[in-house]
Amino acid sequence: MELWFKETHTPNLGMVVKVKETLHREKTRYQDLMIMDTYEFGRALVLDGYIQTTEKDEFIYHEMLVHVPLMAHANPNKVLIIGGGDGGAIREVLKHRKVQQAFLVDIDERVVATCREYLPSLSSALDDPRVTVTIADGIEYVKQFKEAFDVIIVDSTDPLGPSVGLFNRSFYESAYGALRSGGILVAQSEQVMFQPDTVRDIVTTLRAIFPVAKLYLAWVPTYSAWGYGFTIATKGSDPAVISNDDLEGKTRYYSAEVHRAAFVLPPFVKEIIGGE
Amino acid sequence: MELWFKETHTPNLGMVVKVKETLHREKTRYQDLMIMDTYEFGRALVLDGYIQTTEKDEFIYHEMLVHVPLMAHANPNKVLIIGGGDGGAIREVLKHRKVQQAFLVDIDERVVATCREYLPSLSSALDDPRVTVTIADGIEYVKQFKEAFDVIIVDSTDPLGPSVGLFNRSFYESAYGALRSGGILVAQSEQVMFQPDTVRDIVTTLRAIFPVAKLYLAWVPTYSAWGYGFTIATKGSDPAVISNDDLEGKTRYYSAEVHRAAFVLPPFVKEIIGGE
Repeated sequence: MELWFKETHTPNLGMVVKVKETLHREKTRYQDLMIMDTYEFGRALVLDGYIQTTEKDEFIYHEMLVHVPLMAHANPNKVLIIGGGDGGAIREVLKHRKVQQAFLVDIDERVVATCREYLPSLSSALDDPRVTVTIADGIEYVKQFKEAFDVIIVDSTDPLGPSVGLFNRSFYESAYGALRSGGILVAQSEQVMFQPDTVRDIVTTLRAIFPVAKLYLAWVPTYSAWGYGFTIATKGSDPAVISNDDLEGKTRYYSAEVHRAAFVLPPFVKEIIGGE
Repeated sequence: MELWFKETHTPNLGMVVKVKETLHREKTRYQDLMIMDTYEFGRALVLDGYIQTTEKDEFIYHEMLVHVPLMAHANPNKVLIIGGGDGGAIREVLKHRKVQQAFLVDIDERVVATCREYLPSLSSALDDPRVTVTIADGIEYVKQFKEAFDVIIVDSTDPLGPSVGLFNRSFYESAYGALRSGGILVAQSEQVMFQPDTVRDIVTTLRAIFPVAKLYLAWVPTYSAWGYGFTIATKGSDPAVISNDDLEGKTRYYSAEVHRAAFVLPPFVKEIIGGE
């Protein structure tokens, strides 16, 4: 018997992954949650039918989501992650010595609890004494703060279900207000070739709020058939420039060279977002 | 009714593409050949069950296969393409003013004839007066030449079926002999994350024959779930350095910046191939 998981990137294009077994399934208050064990990628967290993270390739997404903003910031002491209940982004944040406090706000306590059980290589970072985990709506949470964080990382699901509001202008405005001077926001921004409108919208919105907003790319096998976009916005600095040197521990995808190269966009991508 | 084409990248991972209709199918002397029309990618050439090229994304593969070696060479007058019967690589080669003669050798005349009929946006380049098309085994063809070409481009299918010999050391040695001083060879080298052994073998073999061999990456949606490798080998020059300026006409993926960034390899890729 063969069990295959199918995920469509578009109505006309999809990925199929052979499954050993489903380890956990439930309908939480916010979304459908599944943990499955796959032959190619090891264990995978699936929300509303979309793979969020897998043991084999999560390092690419999490390293590029976290180290680009943290290495672009000269002194990232206080970091906020919105979403990211699996713990993978927190694990990478904690590799930075300068980080004194890391806050994680996820709306769905069942995601956090289930990843604690099934994905310890990601979630064990949540137990670090520098980390505070809050179960709350990230949109409301951010509104409470003024100039409180050095880096805000939006590690959300796709703009469907509980994450829709995290792609809205009013949320980005609150995030701008919650950042200290010199602060940096990064937001996962979907995949570029097959959802160009989503990527363009995010970049355009952030450019209207922040003085600088740029797109950078990384390649995550389970997220799309092409490059995955991250939008990084700053209060003035160039995020392609590395201003930090406190990354401790091994990275497998990120390096200073990869940081700079990730901002090099093919001409057709520049056209999609209206210039670099 | 829905018709889906399924291609497996590994036994445990695949891609599914929704098909409008199959336009042509035949068993040639060398391989199974199909042209299908898809919703996401337009028309696609399929050989032995693997997508070779599609109207939507072929520009990425062909631009990166061709312009990296031709822009790394100061004076590419004579260019040989082995495989590439669809004509896409020839089309890109002809964008270079310095190219005086371009030779294409494909083993399967049915591929050339069928692409002439169904993929004119690629194959019409084959009619250019600078182009000579020969139907022959590329391995035997190359053996006839000594210091004849400035650039040799191996635009083969995967190392299965008729292309197996194009991945052998003896073929690369013949190609070395067929290159002029300053000559450059480029070979499509499969995808890196899921076929690391193939990529490592190609790079290692070319490093044993040429003084310089490097891997570079591009992302082609229909080829793999991760970066696609190209191995470029030279008689001494650094292929990451651009030595040419005669590229005419628009490119959508290639640029001078993209050329340089394509050689930036994440740490885990360097580990696979044993250093940059």
